[in-house]
Amino acid sequence: MYKIPKATVKRLPFYRRCFESLHEQGIQRILSSQLGDMLKIDPATIRRDFSYIGELGRQGFGYEVNKVLLALNDFLDLNNVEQCVLIGVGNLGRAFLQYNVMKSQQQHNLNPIKILYAFDVAEEIVGKSYSGIQVLHIDKLEEIIRENKVKIAVLSVPPKSANEIAERLEGSGIKGIFNFSSISLNVSRNVYVYDVDLLNELQSFLFFVKNKYE
Amino acid sequence: MYKIPKATVKRLPFYRRCFESLHEQGIQRILSSQLGDMLKIDPATIRRDFSYIGELGRQGFGYEVNKVLLALNDFLDLNNVEQCVLIGVGNLGRAFLQYNVMKSQQQHNLNPIKILYAFDVAEEIVGKSYSGIQVLHIDKLEEIIRENKVKIAVLSVPPKSANEIAERLEGSGIKGIFNFSSISLNVSRNVYVYDVDLLNELQSFLFFVKNKYE
Repeated sequence: MYKIPKATVKRLPFYRRCFESLHEQGIQRILSSQLGDMLKIDPATIRRDFSYIGELGRQGFGYEVNKVLLALNDFLDLNNVEQCVLIGVGNLGRAFLQYNVMKSQQQHNLNPIKILYAFDVAEEIVGKSYSGIQVLHIDKLEEIIRENKVKIAVLSVPPKSANEIAERLEGSGIKGIFNFSSISLNVSRNVYVYDVDLLNELQSFLFFVKNKYE
Repeated sequence: MYKIPKATVKRLPFYRRCFESLHEQGIQRILSSQLGDMLKIDPATIRRDFSYIGELGRQGFGYEVNKVLLALNDFLDLNNVEQCVLIGVGNLGRAFLQYNVMKSQQQHNLNPIKILYAFDVAEEIVGKSYSGIQVLHIDKLEEIIRENKVKIAVLSVPPKSANEIAERLEGSGIKGIFNFSSISLNVSRNVYVYDVDLLNELQSFLFFVKNKYE
């Protein structure tokens, strides 16, 4: 089975953003060496990454900005917005709702998800809306997921509830979990879990600074 | 110059969290193959990553949980908390303040930064506190950084202001920027910039789900 490396996939949205910015500046063509300077990534890595997307550039001529931008949007399938649910409307859940809804309203920030509902158990939260997204009781989770054929979930519950909820998500047909819960989830290989942990990122960042990385 | 790969550094906080959890469960020893199953990372990658930290395990015997945990805390220098400023107290800035202050209050979540002050320009925000952190006017930025010898900044301003602020941060002696501003910063190689962009992460995540990665 053909697989583009995970590290490459993680760089593609960053390239896309960069090409969007070049496009807005009216720049039509760019060399991988110029891109390398801009993005602080080795030009050989950039050329290898782009080779997975298709025949995007020619040696000495560089990349046509508009062509690459369209190819990246297409490759990342950004014109298809996925319906999504969010579970856990605590501090982090609310912050994510606010951020995500804001991004949906901005131009050029192709937000790949649309949050249909949020879920929680706390009486004082259920029934309210945050950033325009209604909070339902967690009892309705399976019903809503099945009715709307939702495949994507954002999990921002406390660690102690995370695995119980993850199991219910898998049981109702969820295929991908964007996991803010700071623990490794025990789901089957049918569910792709993407761990997001700002504290981990801060720890790596500090290491790079203290050890003078460039 | 000796350099541990960036990809390894990015995995170390994740390993650390995992070993903390093993330690709490009273597990004293673990094989790299068991770790690989738990973390869904190739055991060979885990062994190579750990080889950068020191002589942590023996073939067939595995890793002593407590020894690895202490080595990781030490290697990541997590007992030294760095003073930090945050610039831009919009939605994302407030969400980060709330999240970060919350993490500082939790056990075992070794937060490597302490936010001294936040900065903004908006009249209705300056003078207020969010999550216990006071917001000062951006005019005071250089003075506060120099007085407190701050080396680390979290940048959560809109894209259009990001480079102007980044230049001021570099000019006042900042060495690392945790960049939420969604654009590439034009700073010199003396400043380490760590880009954090949840929308990029969502785009990569959706690609993995749609293309059935494991």
